Amino acid sequence: MADEQNIPERPKEAGEQAAEGGEKKGPSKNELKKMQKEQEKAEKAAKRAAEEEAKKKADEASDVSKEDYGQLPYVRESAGVTHETLSELAEQYGGQEFAEDKRPNVVFRATVANARNQSAKLSFLNFKQHPNRISDTIQAVVAASDTLSRQMVKFAGNIPTESKVIVHGVLNTPKEPIKSASIQNMEVHIRKIYTLGKVDNQLPLQVADAERAIPAEGEENATSEDGRPVVSLNTRLTNRTIDLKSNLNHAIFGIKEGVQDLFREFLKARKFRVINTPKLLGAATEGGANVFESTYFDKKAYLAQSPQLYKQMMIAADFERVMEIGSVFRAENSNTARHLTEFIGLDLEMAFEENYHEVVSLLEELMLYIFNGLKTQYKKETDLVRAVYAVEDFKLPEAGKVPRLDFAEGIKMLRDAGVEVNDFDDLSTPDEKKLGALVLEKYGSDFYVLDKFPLAVRPFYTMPSKETMANHDEKNPNAGYSNSYDFFMRGQEIMSGAQRIHDATYLEKRMREHVTPVDPKAPGLKDYVDCFRYGCPPHAGGGIGLERIVMLWLGLPNVRLASLFPRDPGRLMP
Amino acid sequence: MADEQNIPERPKEAGEQAAEGGEKKGPSKNELKKMQKEQEKAEKAAKRAAEEEAKKKADEASDVSKEDYGQLPYVRESAGVTHETLSELAEQYGGQEFAEDKRPNVVFRATVANARNQSAKLSFLNFKQHPNRISDTIQAVVAASDTLSRQMVKFAGNIPTESKVIVHGVLNTPKEPIKSASIQNMEVHIRKIYTLGKVDNQLPLQVADAERAIPAEGEENATSEDGRPVVSLNTRLTNRTIDLKSNLNHAIFGIKEGVQDLFREFLKARKFRVINTPKLLGAATEGGANVFESTYFDKKAYLAQSPQLYKQMMIAADFERVMEIGSVFRAENSNTARHLTEFIGLDLEMAFEENYHEVVSLLEELMLYIFNGLKTQYKKETDLVRAVYAVEDFKLPEAGKVPRLDFAEGIKMLRDAGVEVNDFDDLSTPDEKKLGALVLEKYGSDFYVLDKFPLAVRPFYTMPSKETMANHDEKNPNAGYSNSYDFFMRGQEIMSGAQRIHDATYLEKRMREHVTPVDPKAPGLKDYVDCFRYGCPPHAGGGIGLERIVMLWLGLPNVRLASLFPRDPGRLMP
Repeated sequence: MADEQNIPERPKEAGEQAAEGGEKKGPSKNELKKMQKEQEKAEKAAKRAAEEEAKKKADEASDVSKEDYGQLPYVRESAGVTHETLSELAEQYGGQEFAEDKRPNVVFRATVANARNQSAKLSFLNFKQHPNRISDTIQAVVAASDTLSRQMVKFAGNIPTESKVIVHGVLNTPKEPIKSASIQNMEVHIRKIYTLGKVDNQLPLQVADAERAIPAEGEENATSEDGRPVVSLNTRLTNRTIDLKSNLNHAIFGIKEGVQDLFREFLKARKFRVINTPKLLGAATEGGANVFESTYFDKKAYLAQSPQLYKQMMIAADFERVMEIGSVFRAENSNTARHLTEFIGLDLEMAFEENYHEVVSLLEELMLYIFNGLKTQYKKETDLVRAVYAVEDFKLPEAGKVPRLDFAEGIKMLRDAGVEVNDFDDLSTPDEKKLGALVLEKYGSDFYVLDKFPLAVRPFYTMPSKETMANHDEKNPNAGYSNSYDFFMRGQEIMSGAQRIHDATYLEKRMREHVTPVDPKAPGLKDYVDCFRYGCPPHAGGGIGLERIVMLWLGLPNVRLASLFPRDPGRLMP
Repeated sequence: MADEQNIPERPKEAGEQAAEGGEKKGPSKNELKKMQKEQEKAEKAAKRAAEEEAKKKADEASDVSKEDYGQLPYVRESAGVTHETLSELAEQYGGQEFAEDKRPNVVFRATVANARNQSAKLSFLNFKQHPNRISDTIQAVVAASDTLSRQMVKFAGNIPTESKVIVHGVLNTPKEPIKSASIQNMEVHIRKIYTLGKVDNQLPLQVADAERAIPAEGEENATSEDGRPVVSLNTRLTNRTIDLKSNLNHAIFGIKEGVQDLFREFLKARKFRVINTPKLLGAATEGGANVFESTYFDKKAYLAQSPQLYKQMMIAADFERVMEIGSVFRAENSNTARHLTEFIGLDLEMAFEENYHEVVSLLEELMLYIFNGLKTQYKKETDLVRAVYAVEDFKLPEAGKVPRLDFAEGIKMLRDAGVEVNDFDDLSTPDEKKLGALVLEKYGSDFYVLDKFPLAVRPFYTMPSKETMANHDEKNPNAGYSNSYDFFMRGQEIMSGAQRIHDATYLEKRMREHVTPVDPKAPGLKDYVDCFRYGCPPHAGGGIGLERIVMLWLGLPNVRLASLFPRDPGRLMP
């Protein structure tokens, strides 16, 4: 509320001064003149208002279109009218010349992309629809005539952007192709137009502004060269339901769906079985620090950081090959461009016959299948997003041969390039990026596999390599390499995996001697360890971060852009 | 730790008493005799052990098969040997007669279903594999010969049940069909057999016992008529990784995968888009009582009770038709046979053109598609489970016309059947079951839809019916019916859905006047309400409990049987 005492006094107007200062005195001639004028003004205004009201009533009465526009009720009965999509219309009629009396009548539901009154007799509108991710758009006109009122023209031209409407119209072939619409060889002559709800006239974010890139790091307050607003990531995420209306986002999330579809398709064809493992766990089984803790009646529950233990238990239960697409929760307090606290894990695990490289080869094939599927089925979406973020093409290995390097080989490449690294330390993020660049240079591929990571940097369930087991030293039980691997895109990790230990006794030993020892009898771990006493084949697998693939395929600057409603340490809404 | 003071004293043995009480005294004659006997015994035992050791060494040296059996190391190099599946072998060779010298050599990995030594020269084994859910099984023999040692026969016959093995063998045609195996016209003559890990000799639960039904309610301690153990649900869930090895469970979870596949397939063909909405929420937006609360750095997070608000926000974001298969969390302290605290939600939401019955019709079609898909593609699995639980067939409506009853009509049917019910109260579980029975009787269908529920028993976002809006009474704002529906299988609810309010101002009004009023400005709700200010088409949808469909399709007595690792108020492990 404004502070009333601080409001500056408005200078008094002539009439007011007179009234205040002139008590008991009769008005002067000048004053009388003024009063008379004001009275005349008021009378005129009243007359105008009455006339307008009468005109409006007359207009309404004489509005030949009054049934043909306006707001529809929220609940309507079905009239059985077929509503078509713009893409169906384009396919059916596009490029045809219509005789004056043979123009097709159409009905469709669409979003108003924009609307303007050209004159009292003519309004133009643009409609959009998103049935196939990137929008179809078409131009429409409303022209006043004997059978279409000016009131309706005015109503149509004033419909707020993003309003949903039902349009009845007639298709026409424009003289010139309409460059502002995706359907250029057709336009709609509107006969009826109804809005389906009320929409704010001014949105907190314009969809057009959401079609452009987020500002680069450190340039959050810059303005674009052409004077259009550069909307920050934060503003977009805060107004995410508007942001998500953009073609940019329809393309990104189309690709996210594509990755999931291709993942499933490839694995289902190879007899992988879909499993659903619990996300509420009775114990923090994978590193207590990064786990969210939940209330659970009189107990505590912990949110699953991966389906790791459960997917292995399903292998022990003779499911042979399993996959899961599900939510994964990580309580990492990392505010980087590549961390989320909740994301979608694409997980798989499989029994193998002889050697874990059977699984690595299948995983390589899987990723190539996804990349090639995106290249062919999602080219339009990929091109749209990469153009916005000015990203290079994603280079795939020639002849489908994925570079597979041993960790030690990667270390050597880094050293040869002058990077100081230790033999058995995990790679830092900058070193990973550097190695990715070196691999790209040498093998011409943005995708590669690093195999045989040091045992000490992997989880307790990781199978040591054959050489490591042969040379086991009780005093230094975590020395040597392991049968584990990471997959990289553009120098960033997208998947971690390994052969797992499938024998209970050996697993217990590794749990005790691990760099971070764990108790095999601990709640939540005992059932896991026991499953290997009841018969389990040798197996390996991996977990892929879905949002990371989307980010790195498209070259997005931030993984949050690949999550509909991203979660990070600072954001839980919307 | 045991209380040591309460341990009863062990009666002292002869030798001990003598030593304690007999200090300085020489041993008696009897005592001397005893000592001599014991010495002789010990000498004999040592001799026997030495002989056995020598024999073992000699046996090993003379064991012609010593390379052909035993335990394989955990890590092996690939020899590039093709491992086949039993079903592939059955398809390729089944029913053929092999000439003595033309029997096919085969290598496969399998699970030992059972093994026994028939004699010193002959062992029988049964192998199983699960590449297609219900197991393929085959019989095998190991017979001693000049080239196959008795030691190997003994080893093979002693392999514990559920062990994973690699088998090299020769296919043979048995004289009689082998009734104990699924592949009856072939058997394997074992040439080599290796175990892939150590397995306990005695499992806490036999897989064979997991193939039978759980005891009926109140009969948890009964024994079966044929003397075989009746294993309780609790014992099975505690030993779930053994329980899940059963064909019964491979069938149940095959069907659970089938429902998900059919759901996706149907909706993807109708342009529904897969979305992934957050499970960690910044506020408890759907009823604060039944929500799990999680730590979230310095804040609190709440586990999503459904993707309701988010899937609607995606409709506002022009995604038109969306679906999600994801985890759902309900902190309901209900220990019934049909409640889980975590389950898989099959959710969908779609914009419609004229009336929400467009969506109801699509949902009916969807369910029929799922049922018919299960009937044809999962017949073997359905039959197996229904035989174990002695359940009646699931009756589908004739000519695919799903009975769709108004709520008021359902109330009338119940009243006509003598059940006392109020017009505007929600149905109790027994009433629901009763109505299901009445509908089955009248329409011959185990599947039906109840439409137009009372407004007062539905959530705030539910659209009132046209009549309710027309007769709105500010003093009694929750009177009347709504555009909402439940779907039922065998008289139990599997899906709830409705037309939703798509206008912000009207939604705010309904939130305030709802039976349980909510604040439209509350955190977590404001973003949701606002999305309807930015343009949203009329829409409806529903949420299906996946485990409920599986339970009711198969007629399982408990929903826990349809969850790999079920969660209820008392169970968070394994």
